Amino acid sequence: MKNATYHHRSGLCRLGLILGLAAIAPLAHAVQVQPAPTDPDSPIRLSSNENAFGFSPAAKRAMLENIDAGSYYNRNNITDLINQISRRENVPANHILTTAGSGPVLMMTALAYAEPGKNAVTTAMGYTQLTRRFELQGGEIKYAPLGPDMGYDFDALAALIDENTVLVYICNPNNPTGTLADPRALRRFILSVPPRVLVFVDEAYLEISDTPFETNTMAPLVRLRPNVLISRTFSKCFGMAGFRIGYAVANPAILEKISPYHMGAPTYLSAIAAREALLDTQFMEYSKRHYQEVRNYVKAEFDKMGIQYADPQGAFVFFRPGNGLSGDALRDAMAQHGILISGSRESGVEPGSFADWARVSLGNMDEMKAFIAALNEILKS
Amino acid sequence: MKNATYHHRSGLCRLGLILGLAAIAPLAHAVQVQPAPTDPDSPIRLSSNENAFGFSPAAKRAMLENIDAGSYYNRNNITDLINQISRRENVPANHILTTAGSGPVLMMTALAYAEPGKNAVTTAMGYTQLTRRFELQGGEIKYAPLGPDMGYDFDALAALIDENTVLVYICNPNNPTGTLADPRALRRFILSVPPRVLVFVDEAYLEISDTPFETNTMAPLVRLRPNVLISRTFSKCFGMAGFRIGYAVANPAILEKISPYHMGAPTYLSAIAAREALLDTQFMEYSKRHYQEVRNYVKAEFDKMGIQYADPQGAFVFFRPGNGLSGDALRDAMAQHGILISGSRESGVEPGSFADWARVSLGNMDEMKAFIAALNEILKS
Repeated sequence: MKNATYHHRSGLCRLGLILGLAAIAPLAHAVQVQPAPTDPDSPIRLSSNENAFGFSPAAKRAMLENIDAGSYYNRNNITDLINQISRRENVPANHILTTAGSGPVLMMTALAYAEPGKNAVTTAMGYTQLTRRFELQGGEIKYAPLGPDMGYDFDALAALIDENTVLVYICNPNNPTGTLADPRALRRFILSVPPRVLVFVDEAYLEISDTPFETNTMAPLVRLRPNVLISRTFSKCFGMAGFRIGYAVANPAILEKISPYHMGAPTYLSAIAAREALLDTQFMEYSKRHYQEVRNYVKAEFDKMGIQYADPQGAFVFFRPGNGLSGDALRDAMAQHGILISGSRESGVEPGSFADWARVSLGNMDEMKAFIAALNEILKS
Repeated sequence: MKNATYHHRSGLCRLGLILGLAAIAPLAHAVQVQPAPTDPDSPIRLSSNENAFGFSPAAKRAMLENIDAGSYYNRNNITDLINQISRRENVPANHILTTAGSGPVLMMTALAYAEPGKNAVTTAMGYTQLTRRFELQGGEIKYAPLGPDMGYDFDALAALIDENTVLVYICNPNNPTGTLADPRALRRFILSVPPRVLVFVDEAYLEISDTPFETNTMAPLVRLRPNVLISRTFSKCFGMAGFRIGYAVANPAILEKISPYHMGAPTYLSAIAAREALLDTQFMEYSKRHYQEVRNYVKAEFDKMGIQYADPQGAFVFFRPGNGLSGDALRDAMAQHGILISGSRESGVEPGSFADWARVSLGNMDEMKAFIAALNEILKS
């Protein structure tokens, strides 16, 4: 066992060096980083919305160049990253807070805003990292029902805001449903929220959606409104989940309010990689194109199979396998086929309302073909 | 300027590859990682207790082997690291919480324990990352005076504990003074603290002290007492500050109490590196030997110059330049010589009591010779 692991690692090591050298050559973009989980016995991972298309070779090259500096804190790299983000978002540097993935932004905000008697407004069937922490701190969550086509119902959201509401949380595209808000409706809603209420827009998957990022991002509202926070991550379209980099864009007063819970910036190596990744538009096009390709494949297969799904605009598809199969039963059956998916996920709905839905992350084409084949087999039996 | 940066990076890159290849060869330990800050214009950094002797080549090799897996969260690597730490500390895995450096453990504990009306007991002239956050959350800090030779006065610490005390914080070796507690006196003190009061022992620098680690660590008390927490970091003797890895060892009930403020584990790459670093006893001997060598050099030079200093047992020396020079004035004068040191640091004392003291981190021999030469020059003028 020990030997097997060792030999596996040696293999990866040689591959790593070959790719490392290739990435440093002028034709860097001809060779993409070929990712694989570090666990050699790992099944196909379609449960955590990880990027199967790798990450920027320029980011990798920058990490290899700077790895020897690891015994220093190297704080200048965080500043360099913040300056690059500041250019991307078109806000001053003091409007940016970098974190280890965007998860800390969600949790810090929950910790800073939650207290007994206060509430947060969000949609049913949304992402729960912020809302769960908010509840643990004694706050209340008010859920608006889903709108048509499992999208956001902004009228219902607006109606829930009361004098005890401290924040509104919107994940766009939403997770697990994958639906994207109409940008005009979302903008109108944000502008209608009272200035004393924080509007938190989590755009973790926005780079992957079909329509242009620039049309959909709400980041420009940060300059217009002091109560808007946008969170982003390098874990999804950028493909750098393992390196833990994300950030918040907001008015400095908001960042100051959440900062007592800030446990630190990304590592210097991650900061260096993220800065390069922001400049590498070619990788982002490559990543987005591949996401769209596999997303279209899964949609076409689901259509053939008569499987219902929400319009997927993120790194995953939320679907109803049918045949009375529950999401959890499908997840367990898939695991038997060596494929990890996410089972039933419910929040803010009657328990059981979405028990027969499941979420599959978008892997590469081979992985999605294996998933569709397994699904056909499971549904036949 | 852009070109200069580019050329500098290319140089580092070639060096990195050469070292990378060398590290993979069987004689890995013959070649040490040669660290340098990522900022090419950086002066000599003797202000942040960074390790000038690099880090484990085995850790570097493991990072190079696994860097392509960065698009996955790779959570198994955190488990592997925890299991390795569990063996080192001789406690079950549920007694370990991994964090991005040990700073988060200090801050999380402050956030979890502080509230108005409660107090924390610590020594004057100690490390302030925990105590500052504790005060910001409305708690009070009670400072015991320094004991003989600028060490801990355990009788004074014990006398400060009252019914509103929620924790005692001990950094050993202490920062900025660098003094090491007598292990029997420290153990006796810890066992005397009421079980309802948390005893937090921050052992960030303990691997670097002159007497054996095993004699000095209080970690074995975690198995005897449910109210003891030990924090460690890979930033100092392990030389991995930039990779952000640290951990807490404590009873699961304590870890659960601080966990609402946990913003995440180290990155998968840092976790892989830390696991290898724990196994690489040769690098740790190398690092400790070099720390002792430069520490002895600085002590001998200070003795020749008649400069007063506290017994240094960490990665730095706390000293009184004399000639009426304040710590801050010396820091500024050193900066003129291209050397960064830390100026006056005071906590829990009459303002000004230690204004004529400064702290210099231990760099490599060349850096310390440059520091001593600059100090001689500054004191002459």
